[in-house]
Amino acid sequence: MNPQHLPVQELSKSSSTKDLYVNKIRDGTVIDHISAGHALDVLRILEIHGGEGHIVSVAMNVPSKTTSKKDIVKVENRELRPGEADKIALITPGATINIIRDYEVAEKTRVKLPDVIKGIVKCANPACVSNAGEPVEPKFLVERQDPLRLRCFYCVRIMDKQDVLKQF
Amino acid sequence: MNPQHLPVQELSKSSSTKDLYVNKIRDGTVIDHISAGHALDVLRILEIHGGEGHIVSVAMNVPSKTTSKKDIVKVENRELRPGEADKIALITPGATINIIRDYEVAEKTRVKLPDVIKGIVKCANPACVSNAGEPVEPKFLVERQDPLRLRCFYCVRIMDKQDVLKQF
Repeated sequence: MNPQHLPVQELSKSSSTKDLYVNKIRDGTVIDHISAGHALDVLRILEIHGGEGHIVSVAMNVPSKTTSKKDIVKVENRELRPGEADKIALITPGATINIIRDYEVAEKTRVKLPDVIKGIVKCANPACVSNAGEPVEPKFLVERQDPLRLRCFYCVRIMDKQDVLKQF
Repeated sequence: MNPQHLPVQELSKSSSTKDLYVNKIRDGTVIDHISAGHALDVLRILEIHGGEGHIVSVAMNVPSKTTSKKDIVKVENRELRPGEADKIALITPGATINIIRDYEVAEKTRVKLPDVIKGIVKCANPACVSNAGEPVEPKFLVERQDPLRLRCFYCVRIMDKQDVLKQF
């Protein structure tokens, strides 16, 4: 294996300060421009707890060109599943998603919430018809992206980011 | 600010694969040789959820010289508090802790469980005297470090790593 392609390589091995060079990944996903402090929420959305064996790197509260600070998550051998990008958009609307295939960016998108979201989160109102065991899919109008403000289509309950984070 | 001293620096900015060079930290803690998959448990022990503002970098399931895979956690401007090293030792007995001050390793230790641990975890037996609201500090004999096997000094309940992880 060419050392250049090692996903993580310790530089200056004589130094105990453990510089880490987190190298390019061959296949996987880089989620960048995550709102500072939300990287672990993104890992939760991706259902990555560590034991799955993926090579994962995370940087939190690092300097950013566009905002003052940001988080980054990089996962090898994992692409996003349906709904995951929308969940990420709910908690960090400026994030970008880079799908890497064979060391190249195959797709690059900025997450974007649609005007209406369906089936991603449940209504926080236990009395809502969407929580009554009926075949009613949860549905929300996205009134504002940042800070997040969702309005339930059925019971008009307002939900914010904290309500959403509790579900991930 | 000298770019060399930026804690995280994007290399090859033209590339969207987001190479990350996680540089030396000035002051903080590097926890290395964490058992693969346990980095997020270590963050939980340190009570780092992201919102605290520390620059944090995490690498999971990366190649290691001594074991097949390991995790690494690096936290800027944070040293370990009393008890945290023992908690880390409970879940990842081979970890090393490097305290960095002014870019140098000021202390380097391998975590080690003592033969008896006190006050770090509670007994999993709700009927144990140490859970009865009496002034009895939880106390365990460390019968085995890896895989972990603790024996309660009072009720002889055996605890393993899973029992301990639930408390962090």
